[in-house]
Amino acid sequence: MDKFKITFYPEKKTIEIGKGKTLLSAAISLGINLNSSCTGDGVCGRCKVIIKKGSVSTLPSGRITNEERKKGLYLACLTTALSNVEIEIPPESRLDLSKLSDEEAFLSRLKGVYTKAESIEKSEPVINEDIFIHSPLSTRLYLEMPDPNLQDRISDLERVYRQIRKVRDVKIMQTGLANIRHLGNLLRSSDFKVTVTLGNRNDTTEIVLIEPGDTSKNNFGIAFDIGTTTISGQLVNLNTKQILGTKATFNQQATFGNDIITRIIYAQKEEGLSRLHHAVIDGMNDMIQALIKENNIDLNNVTCCVCAGNTTMTHLLLRVDPTYIRRDPYVPTANFVPVIRSQEAGIKINPRGLLGCVPGISSYVGGDITAGVLACGMDTEKDLCLLIDIGTNGEIVLGNREWMISCAASAGPAFEGSGVSCGMRAREGAIQRVKINKSTYESDVTTILNSKSAGICGSGYIDLIAEMLRAGIIDKSGKIKDIENKHIRVGKLGKEFVVDDNIYINDVDIDNIKRAKGAIYSAAAILVKHMELNFSDIKKVFIAGGFGNYLDMENAITIGLLPDIERSKFKFVGNSSLLGAREIMLSSDAARKAEEIAKKITYFELSTDPKYMDEYVAALFFPHTDANRFANIKL
Amino acid sequence: MDKFKITFYPEKKTIEIGKGKTLLSAAISLGINLNSSCTGDGVCGRCKVIIKKGSVSTLPSGRITNEERKKGLYLACLTTALSNVEIEIPPESRLDLSKLSDEEAFLSRLKGVYTKAESIEKSEPVINEDIFIHSPLSTRLYLEMPDPNLQDRISDLERVYRQIRKVRDVKIMQTGLANIRHLGNLLRSSDFKVTVTLGNRNDTTEIVLIEPGDTSKNNFGIAFDIGTTTISGQLVNLNTKQILGTKATFNQQATFGNDIITRIIYAQKEEGLSRLHHAVIDGMNDMIQALIKENNIDLNNVTCCVCAGNTTMTHLLLRVDPTYIRRDPYVPTANFVPVIRSQEAGIKINPRGLLGCVPGISSYVGGDITAGVLACGMDTEKDLCLLIDIGTNGEIVLGNREWMISCAASAGPAFEGSGVSCGMRAREGAIQRVKINKSTYESDVTTILNSKSAGICGSGYIDLIAEMLRAGIIDKSGKIKDIENKHIRVGKLGKEFVVDDNIYINDVDIDNIKRAKGAIYSAAAILVKHMELNFSDIKKVFIAGGFGNYLDMENAITIGLLPDIERSKFKFVGNSSLLGAREIMLSSDAARKAEEIAKKITYFELSTDPKYMDEYVAALFFPHTDANRFANIKL
Repeated sequence: MDKFKITFYPEKKTIEIGKGKTLLSAAISLGINLNSSCTGDGVCGRCKVIIKKGSVSTLPSGRITNEERKKGLYLACLTTALSNVEIEIPPESRLDLSKLSDEEAFLSRLKGVYTKAESIEKSEPVINEDIFIHSPLSTRLYLEMPDPNLQDRISDLERVYRQIRKVRDVKIMQTGLANIRHLGNLLRSSDFKVTVTLGNRNDTTEIVLIEPGDTSKNNFGIAFDIGTTTISGQLVNLNTKQILGTKATFNQQATFGNDIITRIIYAQKEEGLSRLHHAVIDGMNDMIQALIKENNIDLNNVTCCVCAGNTTMTHLLLRVDPTYIRRDPYVPTANFVPVIRSQEAGIKINPRGLLGCVPGISSYVGGDITAGVLACGMDTEKDLCLLIDIGTNGEIVLGNREWMISCAASAGPAFEGSGVSCGMRAREGAIQRVKINKSTYESDVTTILNSKSAGICGSGYIDLIAEMLRAGIIDKSGKIKDIENKHIRVGKLGKEFVVDDNIYINDVDIDNIKRAKGAIYSAAAILVKHMELNFSDIKKVFIAGGFGNYLDMENAITIGLLPDIERSKFKFVGNSSLLGAREIMLSSDAARKAEEIAKKITYFELSTDPKYMDEYVAALFFPHTDANRFANIKL
Repeated sequence: MDKFKITFYPEKKTIEIGKGKTLLSAAISLGINLNSSCTGDGVCGRCKVIIKKGSVSTLPSGRITNEERKKGLYLACLTTALSNVEIEIPPESRLDLSKLSDEEAFLSRLKGVYTKAESIEKSEPVINEDIFIHSPLSTRLYLEMPDPNLQDRISDLERVYRQIRKVRDVKIMQTGLANIRHLGNLLRSSDFKVTVTLGNRNDTTEIVLIEPGDTSKNNFGIAFDIGTTTISGQLVNLNTKQILGTKATFNQQATFGNDIITRIIYAQKEEGLSRLHHAVIDGMNDMIQALIKENNIDLNNVTCCVCAGNTTMTHLLLRVDPTYIRRDPYVPTANFVPVIRSQEAGIKINPRGLLGCVPGISSYVGGDITAGVLACGMDTEKDLCLLIDIGTNGEIVLGNREWMISCAASAGPAFEGSGVSCGMRAREGAIQRVKINKSTYESDVTTILNSKSAGICGSGYIDLIAEMLRAGIIDKSGKIKDIENKHIRVGKLGKEFVVDDNIYINDVDIDNIKRAKGAIYSAAAILVKHMELNFSDIKKVFIAGGFGNYLDMENAITIGLLPDIERSKFKFVGNSSLLGAREIMLSSDAARKAEEIAKKITYFELSTDPKYMDEYVAALFFPHTDANRFANIKL
């Protein structure tokens, strides 16, 4: 078979590929992350590359304009080499694998996770951290044992067991050979003073580690929220519950598709599952390294982690084949994953440390929602509540302590700042607030950390569209009107509204956001209707997602993302998935509760409900085709 | 550092060793097994080699005669190379690593394990195999599950759990990631008809394996008795309890010392523990391979094994440091070892198969004795019983269902046919019965399988000495008398009595056997005295060990190995350790019982009892210095 050398610039990385292999697959093999939300089907048009040298063969695509073709632009996914080729990757084709963010600004955005949202003054804090008994997934216990003597010569291992049982009520105790092998020496060299790390492992207690001396003070865990677009991690002192650091990063799986369906499809390709698995694991391991370095913590003192993610993310994390999630009747391989060793999933903490996955509900409502329900305490509420988790998937839970029903809608990554022209994650320089002068169309923006604006994050887009509506820049269908103003121009993909320097929004972006908000709103509407209720019957609406308390509620209602009900009913709970994961890591009581919640929530399949498409199409309008539903907004 | 090439013949194996390293260490590194019961201290004089070429430096030793020195013989453990050296290993210096034995004869010897001893006619069978509920360490269960549909779409793993719980009462169910990863495909490609292998793992049920189709019929396990000198293994159909094959082999650890103390010392040397571990594991793995090949069984269908061994053997099997077993106050690292994966210990069955170790009692009374007590049912006896397990260690248990006390004495390997001039294990050609004509001193021998006599096994030695006593060939101290007879001659180590062609016994051998029987008898005597009882108070004496029912009881009493009490009280239980291990493998009920037994038995330390040495010295006579104790024997 003919082989050609493909060299990518500016990386200057070369790979030899066989004839017929696409340039995209060459890039992936080299670890170069190109945008490719359609996973190489030639549909999204995001993987444009410039051929500098060599000859190629390509398939026709409407995604390449004539002008682009003249400049030597090709879609990497549709192009194969006919000779050795040199390629340049334009910046816009590159997946934004921004560095881990942990700026003060980001942390302050996450504040909504721990305290009530600023915008809902005087309402009680949503989260009561002391609801659950403090009993972490892994505990370190210092033991001082009596030396053996002729009257007391039970074996070393039994001596350790006996001492643990003096202070803990342990029914089933387990331990591995690794801890037994050198126990004799360890106990004697430490004068029978050791620290045991105990793990709550599937209703048994496992001695995870036995170490000399008193190391009980050093016990840390990491809670993760694994989103389709964003991964967040939080380092916690398991003894004091203190949060030592929080970080977020884009999920590098985005190279292989923007949403869970394209990723499931990619997982079925050769090496696909393994690549998706490593993409998420690498991101998590980088995050762990950054968190422990900043806090000057030894990796061996990180003894457990707990991950909450949607069902597909959890499958990919564990390298479990996700194929059947998207095949009728949509059954995942596991909703309840046993506690395993982190190492088995490739997560690098203490080699014997544990990994818990928050139990999921169904193929499309996962452990992140279980964690969210736990975090906002919806399962204990007497009143009717609605939880809306805004992410790449929008998940909705309706109910109270008696019953709960859930559904999921694919919103796309727009609210996470991905898949939109100037989108970015909520980190330094992201426009998070926008006001538009109705006369001049001048934008007054607030960026995170007040830095030079670098892009627009989710809350910024919601503000922006609400303000464009109010200023009359767009019509109710979202089209930018024909207005002569220096802020309105025509770009590659149609009309653009310029917010700030090079930051703009175009018709395509607005359409993306409209579909995202439409999907989420209509899912909530269907669920409420299905239970023969009205939005007005709901007493509390928990808004979860990366926005934290930076989401402007009025604007979110104005664009038709949230229902137009009494404002005081809304409670921002921020990244409730991360919070729930942390609670579960800190308390076996919370872990049990999470299992109960996952078992209790009924799943409602939108795709099999013929009314959903009607509801969705009706929602593709700002705020909605049925203006009566949004009678209280002022435009 | 200077390096020299050392070549061993007839193997023609060469190794380069540094100056100062002994020839014994060179042989060990090459995997050549020399006799070395003192582990290289220059004491036993068994590792003689002939230097054919090259120059060496050696330390003086009384173990090499002048004549031998002239012939070029050296002790490998005391000799280092000064140049490249060529060495020949004389056959007598080679450890007898006989092939696995599984001859019919051997099996018939083991019959005592399952049926009453022939010599005790009309007494009830000792072992009731149906005492325990049939519930093997690992079970294979065929499941036919309903396909998922929109009304029944619990996850795949939950579906498996649910089906298992329909037929089994399982409290805590566990499984590993390996079984989850491809479960989706597995269930669908097998039309939701699978076989699960369930393991009883430390009070929880583990799904060890999930396989397509109905493989429930193929479920096998191997029970092992790991003795200091001999390893026995038995392949069992876990479904039917049928015994498919039994094998025995010498424990290759003998290269590193004949008894547990020398092995513990060896374990502390560099690589020592690892070598001892591999020596036992390799023997077991060879045995497993032979057993499955003969029975045409796939290794993956061997799903568990259970090992009974003395405490040191169990430690070495698991590669657990045994150092503290022989240090005051004699505490092992673990008496109760959790069920682990066989693979963790290096035992090659199904890679996810389980390994159970029968719990031990103390540093010198191990799981083999727990298994033995279980097998002979002593823990359920109302009457006072005595269990004597005759092996390289002699272990004694005295008591009944109310109380039990145990002790251990080091007997040496003579009764297992090791460490004596013409000793061999009980396999084809071994002399197992001897009669001596009192006039001619002609021996009438019976060999196993009536083959040409190749050596003498334990039961043969007992007969031989009893008959030599009766014929007046030896005196009561065991010395061969000055008699002119063609069967009596002078050999290298003093007088020899010639049994058959090249088969003989000498004064040193008789001494070895005298010490072995003296150690065992006096241990039993001390235990009985300690409890302020007499041998005559005992209602049943269980005789355990490799002899099976081939031990001549009268002769064993005649030489003073067994106490001189009513013959009908003796019951031969054969390898009760192997039998107990098999029972435990076949029943979780028996496994629980074994734990109770191990906890219940008190350990009595002989070495701290000043009376033991007196008792032992008094027993170094045939039958005993106190003839009144053996009033009923006729010489």
